[in-house]
Amino acid sequence: MTRWQPGARGRLAQAAMELYLERGFGQTTVAQIAERAGVTERTFFRHFADKREMLFDGSAHLQQLMVDAVAGAPADAGPLDAIGAALDAVGAVFVDLDHSRTRQRVIDSDASLQERELIKRERLAIAITEALRARGVGEAAAALSVYAGIGVFHVAFATWIADGNTRSYAEIARELLAELRDVTRPSSGAPDEPTTERSTA
Amino acid sequence: MTRWQPGARGRLAQAAMELYLERGFGQTTVAQIAERAGVTERTFFRHFADKREMLFDGSAHLQQLMVDAVAGAPADAGPLDAIGAALDAVGAVFVDLDHSRTRQRVIDSDASLQERELIKRERLAIAITEALRARGVGEAAAALSVYAGIGVFHVAFATWIADGNTRSYAEIARELLAELRDVTRPSSGAPDEPTTERSTA
Repeated sequence: MTRWQPGARGRLAQAAMELYLERGFGQTTVAQIAERAGVTERTFFRHFADKREMLFDGSAHLQQLMVDAVAGAPADAGPLDAIGAALDAVGAVFVDLDHSRTRQRVIDSDASLQERELIKRERLAIAITEALRARGVGEAAAALSVYAGIGVFHVAFATWIADGNTRSYAEIARELLAELRDVTRPSSGAPDEPTTERSTA
Repeated sequence: MTRWQPGARGRLAQAAMELYLERGFGQTTVAQIAERAGVTERTFFRHFADKREMLFDGSAHLQQLMVDAVAGAPADAGPLDAIGAALDAVGAVFVDLDHSRTRQRVIDSDASLQERELIKRERLAIAITEALRARGVGEAAAALSVYAGIGVFHVAFATWIADGNTRSYAEIARELLAELRDVTRPSSGAPDEPTTERSTA
């Protein structure tokens, strides 16, 4: 199990993750989480809104980091370059591979958590689109960049937490961003270098 | 209202759309739809599984068209070129602007329909990813292309049904695909060789 930040908050988060995996998310109560963490239920509710929200505790922070990175990209950076800056910022946060793997297993185990995750992703996409629009990027260009860039975000995450991976999120994301540029380059007309035998499996 | 194919099926589809807009999707019954179309409930169920599924009647056909277009793209076409072929195929189906606008208003009016639409979109993305993989496209390249390409699909649809638009879906999709290529092109740094240090995952 992951070693998190010390204190009641960290112990609660770790206890919850353990219980979700042992008994299932639906079968775990706040009372059980508090008990395992050695705190009262009141303490639980001082730190988290409920047992579901604690799994999405970092979402707002992550979104803000990405929005700030898009906003702070150089003025002459294109929309996908700005998203690249956001992915670099994510790389500084997605560093605890064990924790992210465990969390994803919990999410995957429960339909209501998957739904919540989808909503968070949608919000993130909207926020980044708005950040690009604020840079003066046109509506269509912003939307297209976000679809493509959020794709890099998710594929990088899946690659990062895959069994056996040891590379950093930042490295994977940067590589995939380059690959996105590669696959979106016209292959006809300018027959530079078609996407031959690249087995990224 | 849209003029659909004649016969009971077309009358049912049109009656349903009218009632969904007049009374709301949740408040409309199959009996009411059948009555307005001048057929029996039994006839309704010969054509449609239920009042929700009839709104997604064309999804399977659309998905098959897109998958076939990806599969049938020239062997040397890159992944996004293959998706471009799929978008051209969609352009041959998305021709009834009034119908698509009306259908979207109905979908937007009901949370359960929006959820169903999301699931259909997810299935479409998976099917196109598999079609690209079958062409020998690597896993990451296929996933990235589908995120970006499905973005074009959706942005084109939203642009097409927007108030005041009169351009064809096919024209809009082609333009947006070009814009996607444009926004994903490196704007600074080393624009000539963005993929040199791409080591396979």
